[in-house]
Amino acid sequence: MTTTAELDTITRTASLVAPMVAATTDIERALWLEAIADALDARVGELVALADEESSLGVPRLTGEVARTTAQLRLFASVVREGSYLDATIDHADPAATPPTPDLRRMMRPIGPVAVFSASNFPFAFSVAGGDTASALAVGCPVIVKAHPAHPRLSRLTAEIVTEALRRVDAPDGTFALVEGVEAGSALVTSPVVEAVGFTGSLHGGRALFDLAVARPKPIPFYGELGSLNPVLVTPSAVSAELAAGLAASFTLGVGQFCTKPGIVFVPEASGFDRLLAEAVGAPRPATMLSPSLATAFADGLALLQARATTLVGAEQEPGSGTPVVLATTVADILASPDDLLVECFGPTTLLVRYGSVDEALDAIALIGGSLTAALHATDDDDIAGLAESLARISGRVLFGGWPTGVAVTWAQQHGGPWPSTTSPGHTSVGAAAVRRWIRPVAYQAAPSAVLPLALRDDNPLGVPQRVDGVLRLG
Amino acid sequence: MTTTAELDTITRTASLVAPMVAATTDIERALWLEAIADALDARVGELVALADEESSLGVPRLTGEVARTTAQLRLFASVVREGSYLDATIDHADPAATPPTPDLRRMMRPIGPVAVFSASNFPFAFSVAGGDTASALAVGCPVIVKAHPAHPRLSRLTAEIVTEALRRVDAPDGTFALVEGVEAGSALVTSPVVEAVGFTGSLHGGRALFDLAVARPKPIPFYGELGSLNPVLVTPSAVSAELAAGLAASFTLGVGQFCTKPGIVFVPEASGFDRLLAEAVGAPRPATMLSPSLATAFADGLALLQARATTLVGAEQEPGSGTPVVLATTVADILASPDDLLVECFGPTTLLVRYGSVDEALDAIALIGGSLTAALHATDDDDIAGLAESLARISGRVLFGGWPTGVAVTWAQQHGGPWPSTTSPGHTSVGAAAVRRWIRPVAYQAAPSAVLPLALRDDNPLGVPQRVDGVLRLG
Repeated sequence: MTTTAELDTITRTASLVAPMVAATTDIERALWLEAIADALDARVGELVALADEESSLGVPRLTGEVARTTAQLRLFASVVREGSYLDATIDHADPAATPPTPDLRRMMRPIGPVAVFSASNFPFAFSVAGGDTASALAVGCPVIVKAHPAHPRLSRLTAEIVTEALRRVDAPDGTFALVEGVEAGSALVTSPVVEAVGFTGSLHGGRALFDLAVARPKPIPFYGELGSLNPVLVTPSAVSAELAAGLAASFTLGVGQFCTKPGIVFVPEASGFDRLLAEAVGAPRPATMLSPSLATAFADGLALLQARATTLVGAEQEPGSGTPVVLATTVADILASPDDLLVECFGPTTLLVRYGSVDEALDAIALIGGSLTAALHATDDDDIAGLAESLARISGRVLFGGWPTGVAVTWAQQHGGPWPSTTSPGHTSVGAAAVRRWIRPVAYQAAPSAVLPLALRDDNPLGVPQRVDGVLRLG
Repeated sequence: MTTTAELDTITRTASLVAPMVAATTDIERALWLEAIADALDARVGELVALADEESSLGVPRLTGEVARTTAQLRLFASVVREGSYLDATIDHADPAATPPTPDLRRMMRPIGPVAVFSASNFPFAFSVAGGDTASALAVGCPVIVKAHPAHPRLSRLTAEIVTEALRRVDAPDGTFALVEGVEAGSALVTSPVVEAVGFTGSLHGGRALFDLAVARPKPIPFYGELGSLNPVLVTPSAVSAELAAGLAASFTLGVGQFCTKPGIVFVPEASGFDRLLAEAVGAPRPATMLSPSLATAFADGLALLQARATTLVGAEQEPGSGTPVVLATTVADILASPDDLLVECFGPTTLLVRYGSVDEALDAIALIGGSLTAALHATDDDDIAGLAESLARISGRVLFGGWPTGVAVTWAQQHGGPWPSTTSPGHTSVGAAAVRRWIRPVAYQAAPSAVLPLALRDDNPLGVPQRVDGVLRLG
């Protein structure tokens, strides 16, 4: 565990180094990210073996996750090279205006040292060198990662590789650091040096840290991705055995340990979907979960739901493992007990909700509040415009067909949504726009050209997109 | 005062109407804003007379403020017509990728009903039809304004004009509402219907409302513009009588009742600036402040500062008025008692801080934490790059020459900064980017074209800027 003295040194160093990191160019930092990606790729075998020992997620999935993580680092490198994220905006002085307006130039600057809390379920993509770290380094913020206790050795190895890669490309010492332990985590959130926090984890843990961040004498932005139900709406015409098979694969993928797991599925009553899903799940088999405490939490959460809902496919849970369970209830029961039934149960389970009419299902979906995703399974004969709008109202990503468990890392991805899925509905933790969490605007009024950041100069030496006197220009 | 029953009706209506408001087009809402602007301009005489009765700010200033307010409404109309704010991003499916990526399209959508808290010091520009209201309506959010008690009749008249203008251009009933009273204000912040809050006012009042917003079962974004010291750094070579005259005019403008008032000015010791400023201020004369309680707070704040600092130009304060006061201290005293001396005193006063070296002044400026603005007065002989960087670290707008009290409403304006100047350093409450506070991203995965918002279609019928497969394209 990181001691108080060690943490003091780490935060003091981050504070001292922040102006140097902020002063680096986008091109330099793109090279940092690519160096980290190359270094991780070069040691993929060793990393995956250690990750499998600690997470039981299996070599194929973990190998894919390393690739996703290094692709993510390279995406953020391309995002800062492209330069739109700077929002470079130039308004020339207008002495003829009433009152006359001065020369004003605005762009995004790094917010300062960022604390990142790793998640257990993605030991690469949402951990030490994951999306939060990559996006914060990309824009020029020092990063202090709080390791997840479910994979301590992997966290340390990853941190060593990141530190070494950064050193090789001359990033300032102290640009990146790792801390361990619950107390170090809380101390990070309340440290006067830390300017923003990224978090992926449970509603309970995330809310506790959020409360710390906003109660500080100087509150700071807390970008938390918490829990998500990810409702799926199946119209009567879309019911099929293939759909049931898709759902079975999605809710059991990675032992159900995805924040985008389809946790609640609205199906027409008397449509036979129950039976199709039971057949698709087959004989449930236990699989090791990420940690014994997660397995216990899964069993406990299941027990609460099973007291309220029918068990369609069930099994005794074994210590340390999760075994698939399918539950069923009705819209009437959801409307009667939303607080008991609309709760995330992290692990391989999903709740089927039988509806009489689609409108009735939408009433229940509206009660979910906020979710990372919402999926619609319909056919060409369905009129889906209104349904799509209802699903967009409670989520950050609306899927038409398909399953939410895949999260592509691209420019248009949105991984975030209204509370409780995130603390900050205006942001994303995956995709190019994730950098927006770690920047703040600064305007320069009547500045001599030599003092201006390059992105704000009239001759645009970096070739970034600029808005000049209200008109957007490509770089 | 708005009763609980009235507030219930208002919030319930805002909730019901929100989907309808969100479904309007940018072009429609641009017309709403222009209709409001035209309606205010048409009644400028009546509005200004009432505002002067309630605020004592004088006819010329208030007439200018109406023009600024209607120009602001028209700027936001042009911002949503232009469409960059939507961040329209299209990633076509890539079946050849590992794993294959789906078609993903992301854009900004309105966040839902917004509560706006008016300020007393700008009865037009930061009040009922001010920047928060205009920017939230612009992007499709219903707005509920909490009137400022310092100008109740003007608030009601403005609300009538806004409501009538919106009705004339067929905005849904309930798109806009006004409430009055402290209790109604708190109830708005905790209402489950309200999705975000805009606030301009004191650190004390803003923090109390911020604490309510983040303590909700479902926390919501709170965009507060609180207090600001707006430091000014004068280099030895820049000292002049003209500069002193500029400062005297700026800190007394509008009886010092600006959030951008230069409240602390770092000047070289033994430079004679004290005397130049005293001459420029001349014989101080009282002027009526916005409210008796503000005048009392000014006198109380002054007394606290005067216990710690020297009074260079002073006067007995009269009830209801503010009379200019110039205080002086040293960097050593600031470093010894930052909590006593680095406090905003809203009214016509400024604190001169004598420094031995510029580096010493920067040490004291770093203790300010966050400010809306920071201004540098230097000459061509000064090496200012490092100074500019230090000032950018603690502020949202860095001025090179000039005074911070003028805030141009343009695309590149930034009115916001690190705590305590705002609760949200990543945002602005003035300028085109102010719309960003009221939107959240939604991604559509594999959506049929007919279901997509127009801004996300391949044929781009609205002609908005789109990023397609990573490449930004003009509309």
